Amino acid sequence: MLEELKERVCAANLELVARGVVIYTWGNVSGISSDRKYMVIKPSGVAYDGMMPEDMVVLDVATGETVEGKWNPSSDTKTHLALYRAFPTIGGITHTHSVHAVAFAQAGRAIPALGTTHADYFYGDIPCTRELTAAEVSEDYELNTGNVIVETLRQLAIDPLAVPGIVVKNHGPFTWGKDAAASVYHAVVMEKVAEMDLKTLLLNPDAGLAQYVLDKHYMRKHGPNAYYGQKQ
Amino acid sequence: MLEELKERVCAANLELVARGVVIYTWGNVSGISSDRKYMVIKPSGVAYDGMMPEDMVVLDVATGETVEGKWNPSSDTKTHLALYRAFPTIGGITHTHSVHAVAFAQAGRAIPALGTTHADYFYGDIPCTRELTAAEVSEDYELNTGNVIVETLRQLAIDPLAVPGIVVKNHGPFTWGKDAAASVYHAVVMEKVAEMDLKTLLLNPDAGLAQYVLDKHYMRKHGPNAYYGQKQ
Amino acid sequence: MLEELKERVCAANLELVARGVVIYTWGNVSGISSDRKYMVIKPSGVAYDGMMPEDMVVLDVATGETVEGKWNPSSDTKTHLALYRAFPTIGGITHTHSVHAVAFAQAGRAIPALGTTHADYFYGDIPCTRELTAAEVSEDYELNTGNVIVETLRQLAIDPLAVPGIVVKNHGPFTWGKDAAASVYHAVVMEKVAEMDLKTLLLNPDAGLAQYVLDKHYMRKHGPNAYYGQKQ
Amino acid sequence: MLEELKERVCAANLELVARGVVIYTWGNVSGISSDRKYMVIKPSGVAYDGMMPEDMVVLDVATGETVEGKWNPSSDTKTHLALYRAFPTIGGITHTHSVHAVAFAQAGRAIPALGTTHADYFYGDIPCTRELTAAEVSEDYELNTGNVIVETLRQLAIDPLAVPGIVVKNHGPFTWGKDAAASVYHAVVMEKVAEMDLKTLLLNPDAGLAQYVLDKHYMRKHGPNAYYGQKQ
Repeated sequence: MLEELKERVCAANLELVARGVVIYTWGNVSGISSDRKYMVIKPSGVAYDGMMPEDMVVLDVATGETVEGKWNPSSDTKTHLALYRAFPTIGGITHTHSVHAVAFAQAGRAIPALGTTHADYFYGDIPCTRELTAAEVSEDYELNTGNVIVETLRQLAIDPLAVPGIVVKNHGPFTWGKDAAASVYHAVVMEKVAEMDLKTLLLNPDAGLAQYVLDKHYMRKHGPNAYYGQKQ
Repeated sequence: MLEELKERVCAANLELVARGVVIYTWGNVSGISSDRKYMVIKPSGVAYDGMMPEDMVVLDVATGETVEGKWNPSSDTKTHLALYRAFPTIGGITHTHSVHAVAFAQAGRAIPALGTTHADYFYGDIPCTRELTAAEVSEDYELNTGNVIVETLRQLAIDPLAVPGIVVKNHGPFTWGKDAAASVYHAVVMEKVAEMDLKTLLLNPDAGLAQYVLDKHYMRKHGPNAYYGQKQ
Repeated sequence: MLEELKERVCAANLELVARGVVIYTWGNVSGISSDRKYMVIKPSGVAYDGMMPEDMVVLDVATGETVEGKWNPSSDTKTHLALYRAFPTIGGITHTHSVHAVAFAQAGRAIPALGTTHADYFYGDIPCTRELTAAEVSEDYELNTGNVIVETLRQLAIDPLAVPGIVVKNHGPFTWGKDAAASVYHAVVMEKVAEMDLKTLLLNPDAGLAQYVLDKHYMRKHGPNAYYGQKQ
Repeated sequence: MLEELKERVCAANLELVARGVVIYTWGNVSGISSDRKYMVIKPSGVAYDGMMPEDMVVLDVATGETVEGKWNPSSDTKTHLALYRAFPTIGGITHTHSVHAVAFAQAGRAIPALGTTHADYFYGDIPCTRELTAAEVSEDYELNTGNVIVETLRQLAIDPLAVPGIVVKNHGPFTWGKDAAASVYHAVVMEKVAEMDLKTLLLNPDAGLAQYVLDKHYMRKHGPNAYYGQKQ
């Protein structure tokens, strides 16, 4: 079932390796079917090298049960499911442990909007979640990781497609997009922006960005009168 | 038209990828025809992989109108045009979002002349522009980006071929040279120098360079009695 | 003798190069035979390029004498032997001079547990040994390097398989695991975690990790009810 | 003439590229003939790609005149000559603009001996020269660069083979060794050590190394009773 989606999700997982944002079995990418009934995700702890579409695991989004696949799904499966359930505009999700994004996560700091590279993809700071409580960790940890992401975006009134990523405190980045490939793209951009920001803050701890520059760059690519790129 | 220039501009764009200073569709390179009537530039938002000379866009420098090409030109086209109009010695222009140069741009700091690597190519600090005003951003943003570069060089009385690059505040580096290839070369050198400088400043925030060393290194390569390299 | 072990130890040494954690002849990996009578280790100062299983050196664990091999064993041989003798659960050991782990070693600081990347493999801070005394260095230096590792783990009551690595002050990282390949894996992870931690501390010198997150992540991979990965 | 030496010097220059310590035409390596009459060096400003032994330039060490070669020699030729004349034990010299070594040069700081990686190759801090005076720069700059290196080593009573490298203030690293290949090796090690040291100092500005550890590591590789590596 969902052969094309499995192919695209598999390719998106392999792209993580090609872009240098994962090593070993770290990271995972998922995609959701167009009817939003099924999620396709990387298996847990399986090497990228030689990974094939048929290694992907298909789960029922409503129940979280595996409906096809020979492997256990990613250990972060429940986090992905929570995001798909909360945000109907999200079509794909990526999780990595890329170094600079993790540094912000471990520092408990948002990745601030400091320039146009950021503004081209993220319409405002990339938030950092609060720390999970001991209870949230001991009981249904991965689901609660999803819940704290949802909570953070809602509290900040963030449209998930306008700021397609977050860092989970002491953990690392989750990104998303209209499909699996877009979520990987945002994971790569977030890592690059996090590196730029760390180095910027070493040069100027008070660096900032005018709101009107943020508006301009985001809108020229994503607004109703966007003029970046080619007409579709 | 301008087949050779399109080939050279296309090759210069691909060199950005080979040198590791761009990812995805980031960055752009242009070149101007010898009669300075036409600018050839990378299309907007098109992938580097498989890019061909016929993908380049040709514009009229005076009017800014596209005169040949199947794609929209780079969204930074008006910035390039402003520089060619202001500085008749410039033959090629490069824009990237390379990490260390962006860090200085986001920090709002010039890339200081701290050593001979810098002095071999840039005769003095690489300036950082002032921030654009809200009005400049909302109306003809890309043109005003070019204007603020011109304004900065003129205020500092900088010969653009002596300091062939700048960082635009909160945005990133623009470099130029006698042709497209030279502008890419300067983009790569600026990124390397920015990395050296960031690391130098971490070791010694008060680092500096004697003017006579700057003079010597720049002049032995570029002065009337230059002796670096081979006789042409 | 021990042909299969020599093959695996040789492959583990070459993996150090492939993962980018050694240059030239730096670093070494060893493995112990299942009866714990023999250690197989890389020869001293021999290039990785073209290294073959028959280049490995076999030593008697009890006496430290070479029992097979055409080369001198790694100069760190006695350090490896001390660890195998002290910890019967260790099956392989790796030593590198990877940059970020060395930075912590030279700084005399533990690599702190700051996030889940760390917690997935190291159940607590990766300790830094005390400095060796002049007497320990002048007499049987490599053996005493092993002894100070053993001393540190025992003083901190650390199970070596729960925290499979350490940094030796002013020297660098040693890692271990159930076999040679696992010790290399831990060397690569430690280097990545050290890089994350250095960058985290630049963003927030007071960064830390809740004990319950450390417990959760370590246990979901390594505890009695581990659920990461696939059933064996 | 000196065909074998030209081959070895050419290979050593190309090794700079392979090891990632130079870009474009940066850097240069030379070697001296066994009778110390002739120096073979890279030509000035010529690309590494496709460089052949016959591109090397042969100079008379005593007079500094070119005796064979179709190109101008490296612009740093007089610096190399000064070192060969001053130190009869040096057989090869390398100059690069590698990032971390340059950062120390630009900061005007020695690369301190902070660990065993350093001690394995450099018996003490890698010094930074004083700044050249305006007179030294304006008149015979490259010769005076050599002279200030000689002056620094003599003032510090350093045996050039025991500390086979230096950083020239505001310029960058020069390294040497028994032959051209050894000088490249030391250039690569110095860059790695400089990176380790910068990162160490960010973690602990007061980091240091006990003299007895420095003695031990240097001597076990280079002392009269050295036991690292294989018997020659």
